[in-house]
Amino acid sequence: MTPNERLMQQINFIIEIDKLKSIWRQTTLIDGSRRENDAEHSWHLAVMTMLLSEYANKKDIDVLRVMKMVIIHDLVEIDAGDTFAYDQEGYKDKEKREEEAANRIFSILPKDQYKEIYHLWREFEEGHTPEARFAAALDRVQPLLHNYYTEGGTWKQHNVTLDQVTKRFEPIKEGSEVLGKLVEEIINESVAKGYIRQGM
Amino acid sequence: MTPNERLMQQINFIIEIDKLKSIWRQTTLIDGSRRENDAEHSWHLAVMTMLLSEYANKKDIDVLRVMKMVIIHDLVEIDAGDTFAYDQEGYKDKEKREEEAANRIFSILPKDQYKEIYHLWREFEEGHTPEARFAAALDRVQPLLHNYYTEGGTWKQHNVTLDQVTKRFEPIKEGSEVLGKLVEEIINESVAKGYIRQGM
Repeated sequence: MTPNERLMQQINFIIEIDKLKSIWRQTTLIDGSRRENDAEHSWHLAVMTMLLSEYANKKDIDVLRVMKMVIIHDLVEIDAGDTFAYDQEGYKDKEKREEEAANRIFSILPKDQYKEIYHLWREFEEGHTPEARFAAALDRVQPLLHNYYTEGGTWKQHNVTLDQVTKRFEPIKEGSEVLGKLVEEIINESVAKGYIRQGM
Repeated sequence: MTPNERLMQQINFIIEIDKLKSIWRQTTLIDGSRRENDAEHSWHLAVMTMLLSEYANKKDIDVLRVMKMVIIHDLVEIDAGDTFAYDQEGYKDKEKREEEAANRIFSILPKDQYKEIYHLWREFEEGHTPEARFAAALDRVQPLLHNYYTEGGTWKQHNVTLDQVTKRFEPIKEGSEVLGKLVEEIINESVAKGYIRQGM
């Protein structure tokens, strides 16, 4: 492969992933004006990585690796679509759809970078490393903040219960005890304010 | 300041910068469906940082610092707005507007993080370090790709000339000779295809 071929593969990938800007999530912007897309969401997580990594359970976490993970973690949704957190049906074949998507999209890159991004994505999905756990915590804290600051947002819209929310946010403390505690407080306030309904 | 106060300042900042998702650039998405916003654009630059840092003029560039710079470089536009690259009038008071914006927005953070982000932003704006020059190169390559792949995009819309485009993209090679050469080729093709008009 000539150096120019390598660069063209990288450019082709950069063009392809522009589609992430058209993958719409359930969550709205904090001003409620519209739903947000995966690219904006990923950017928001990158800033959060920068500012909140001091709260990761593991001291001296590899911030660059977390940053890379949050930036690429949703790329598979270009093909597989966004699966809403409380959509049990959608979760059934999520893994298969996303694996196929990863193979198609990441293989546009030169082989070494295909491997790097694939491994980062798997690391995020499997959540076995402190970096992956912290990245996953941020991925859950961000929409929670949006839901709280839009007075219920998708919780109200989809009639989500306290049990569902608690289960969904349980893993946050595996990445960050501090953020886990914050989330607990926000959930309590959200119940008190009627943003989340009690019950199963 | 209690640990909780520090965390609340960080959360307030994370909420405030959601507004970046509503700052619209001139550039459209590559499918031409709508204009893109600053948050999406910043995300795109972060992926480009990850994939293209091998082409920075300086070997072993600090990738994390470039990543942080591209992620925060447009935050000032929450107050100052996006100044179109070929808007001479808008450029007159750009610096003053952006400095005020930096002070208001970054000061929501705890002091140490205010300083860190402020210095990263100044580093990007001043362009004296290899990291800042590489970040600035990416910031120019990305809309160029969008313009090329939308068959002229904002170049055609604003009747931009080859002289203007050449001047605008001149600094890319200071961050990356390889990307500078790529951009030269893309500009030549764009002229041949009529996306950029010849002349002054």
